[in-house]
Amino acid sequence: MIITKIESKQNSTIKQLARLAKDKKYRNNMNQMVCEGEKMLFEALSSEVKVHTVLIKIGENVSSELIDKAINQGAHIFETDEKLFNLASDVETPQNVLFSCDMPHRMADELPQNLNGAILLDGVQDPGNLGTILRTADAFALSAVILCEGCTDPTAPKVVRSTMGAIFRQPIYKMQIEQAIAAMHTRKIKVCAATLVQDSIPINKTNLKNSAVVIGNEGRGLSDKTLSLCDEKIIIPMMGKAESLNASVAAAILIWEMSEDIKNE
Amino acid sequence: MIITKIESKQNSTIKQLARLAKDKKYRNNMNQMVCEGEKMLFEALSSEVKVHTVLIKIGENVSSELIDKAINQGAHIFETDEKLFNLASDVETPQNVLFSCDMPHRMADELPQNLNGAILLDGVQDPGNLGTILRTADAFALSAVILCEGCTDPTAPKVVRSTMGAIFRQPIYKMQIEQAIAAMHTRKIKVCAATLVQDSIPINKTNLKNSAVVIGNEGRGLSDKTLSLCDEKIIIPMMGKAESLNASVAAAILIWEMSEDIKNE
Repeated sequence: MIITKIESKQNSTIKQLARLAKDKKYRNNMNQMVCEGEKMLFEALSSEVKVHTVLIKIGENVSSELIDKAINQGAHIFETDEKLFNLASDVETPQNVLFSCDMPHRMADELPQNLNGAILLDGVQDPGNLGTILRTADAFALSAVILCEGCTDPTAPKVVRSTMGAIFRQPIYKMQIEQAIAAMHTRKIKVCAATLVQDSIPINKTNLKNSAVVIGNEGRGLSDKTLSLCDEKIIIPMMGKAESLNASVAAAILIWEMSEDIKNE
Repeated sequence: MIITKIESKQNSTIKQLARLAKDKKYRNNMNQMVCEGEKMLFEALSSEVKVHTVLIKIGENVSSELIDKAINQGAHIFETDEKLFNLASDVETPQNVLFSCDMPHRMADELPQNLNGAILLDGVQDPGNLGTILRTADAFALSAVILCEGCTDPTAPKVVRSTMGAIFRQPIYKMQIEQAIAAMHTRKIKVCAATLVQDSIPINKTNLKNSAVVIGNEGRGLSDKTLSLCDEKIIIPMMGKAESLNASVAAAILIWEMSEDIKNE
């Protein structure tokens, strides 16, 4: 194995990895993001995403099979001591390996003609929520999660971690909300707005099969403009006194219902 | 209104509030916890929980109706400047008011005879997950969430915040897992173990009406001993490549299915 040892904190690889973790603009310019841990590296190497740089913490046990796979796919492998490794890492308790790779999300023109449903996110702001929604969508093999304006950056380290690897499997697209809704209509897919308004249709009284569901901002919900573009307003019926659900919980119940309807087809 | 002004960081009220936020043992000894924000104060004052101390940040607008209500319920009201307020607060961006109150969870012997279902948590460790599960249970008016050994402390500030006020509405009980399962059996309630094992019954092929569902630790799941005490092993069927769901997402789908079955009764 060809592994380069890094011994200076001025090393450009350390600096680049640290900057990828912290700087959204830099990630966008480079079209790269950074991830930690063997599980994530395994997921990245099993996906279509290109892995560029792998940094190993000296003294930690990292699967040689995984490193071989990375080398075979053209990645550059480095190792360094704990102190320099921690400089490159974004987390409080860094793992044994971190790596940079291409961003996994796709453009509007890559959206397939046939979809089994989609989740459109319009301004979901919390990184944990976004990551968890991507993880749930992947678990139920949803065709597409579409990120519209105002969503938090899906390549932020906290989002990536929360996906537990789903970021490399779940097809993710970036579009304007109007464009996303139009893309659904072109594909004859009903667009349902998830609301908290009582005159909406309870989700157990409508068919979410082959539907797209639009989920809005955690605090503000969906804009009037977005609502006016949707075909149906839906609500998760709640019997308790709570005013709302956590956004990733609401998304989970909606995705489950979309998938239940697919299963019962 | 009788409001006492605090001007020293040596003040015992400031010290006590700060310690309640940070020190689990102290919370248990005092049988008190600490919360932030007007919404939480409103929820606490609307519940059966006793509010002890309210601390207002000078210069911020706090509803006088809310303060009157607190005074009428026997709370002591203090005000202080931003610097001392921040000493008492646990969060990075403190709100305009914080308060101490009695712990809201109940003991085993307070569990009602009639339940519409229950969630038993066996070792749920992440504060955000626990808070979100309590919020979801409250939204669907579940009779009981039972916290068994190994669960994170429900009075930790991060849990309390994630509940969005549900901590004051959702009936929460603390019991050993064996005791909780026995309590369900006494009430003729079926106990279902949420698993990731493929030979379990898919949740859409079983009736979760009037059931108790046991959810295990985020990493390890349920112990063999707990599994052996349950009546049924159930699984959320997933079509994707993910191995598991986030614990609060799994709980949400399970609670939704429990509540769907109740609705279709």
